[in-house]
Amino acid sequence: MRGDAFSSGMVASDAHDVPDVDLAFEDNEYLPAVAQDAESGDVLMLAYVTREALDRTRETGLAHYYSRSRDELWQKGETSGNVQHLKEIRVDCDGDALLYVIEQDGGACHTGFQSCFHRTIDGEVVGERVFDPDDVYE
Amino acid sequence: MRGDAFSSGMVASDAHDVPDVDLAFEDNEYLPAVAQDAESGDVLMLAYVTREALDRTRETGLAHYYSRSRDELWQKGETSGNVQHLKEIRVDCDGDALLYVIEQDGGACHTGFQSCFHRTIDGEVVGERVFDPDDVYE
Repeated sequence: MRGDAFSSGMVASDAHDVPDVDLAFEDNEYLPAVAQDAESGDVLMLAYVTREALDRTRETGLAHYYSRSRDELWQKGETSGNVQHLKEIRVDCDGDALLYVIEQDGGACHTGFQSCFHRTIDGEVVGERVFDPDDVYE
Repeated sequence: MRGDAFSSGMVASDAHDVPDVDLAFEDNEYLPAVAQDAESGDVLMLAYVTREALDRTRETGLAHYYSRSRDELWQKGETSGNVQHLKEIRVDCDGDALLYVIEQDGGACHTGFQSCFHRTIDGEVVGERVFDPDDVYE
């Protein structure tokens, strides 16, 4: 019973009747990945990953993404030094979205804010600015 | 100076030289929206919105999304009762991703878990099951 396995809490997929984690890369060239600060729980950014970017993230322990506009794999913080140290990767129920739980060096946003989500939809700035992008990007 | 406005913390966009919040609906039919629990900070789900779904969310105070597979606007919890009460909407720096900060009735995941991100990429179940989907969905 799927329900029994689910209700038993922290279980390994190979030990119980929990479905394997299938990722929807066959139907999607890219999947969205949300980066969340492991300590504060803040949502820091959303970017996209290919299978290769995901593999590189797991191999290195540093968050990698895929830029759809530049059409290239990139390591977060490669230029700025604001790398993301991976603590855990979670997958959603449909296997078409990822959650990177990370420790963020510096700030996640290229504008200098800790989070890319530092504005409300009304334009109010509610996030914290943690670095000056002029000091980081040439 | 953009930097001055940013470093002054919580400011309204019309009162300072902060750029208005432009949303990238011209270049994207759908934008991803991440739902985060206002109290726990848990990331609960990722779905997509059209401009109409976003407008409906703001009008009603209940999270609405757009199903790309069913090609229709939907209100989260319309069937299950597990609605999401909107506390705040945030927009990322590029205007191409949204963060719904919400209070979740019941659980967010159709499988009965509090969060759709209840598994690690290795298949380990780390989330909490909060309802039985058989009781909720017919």
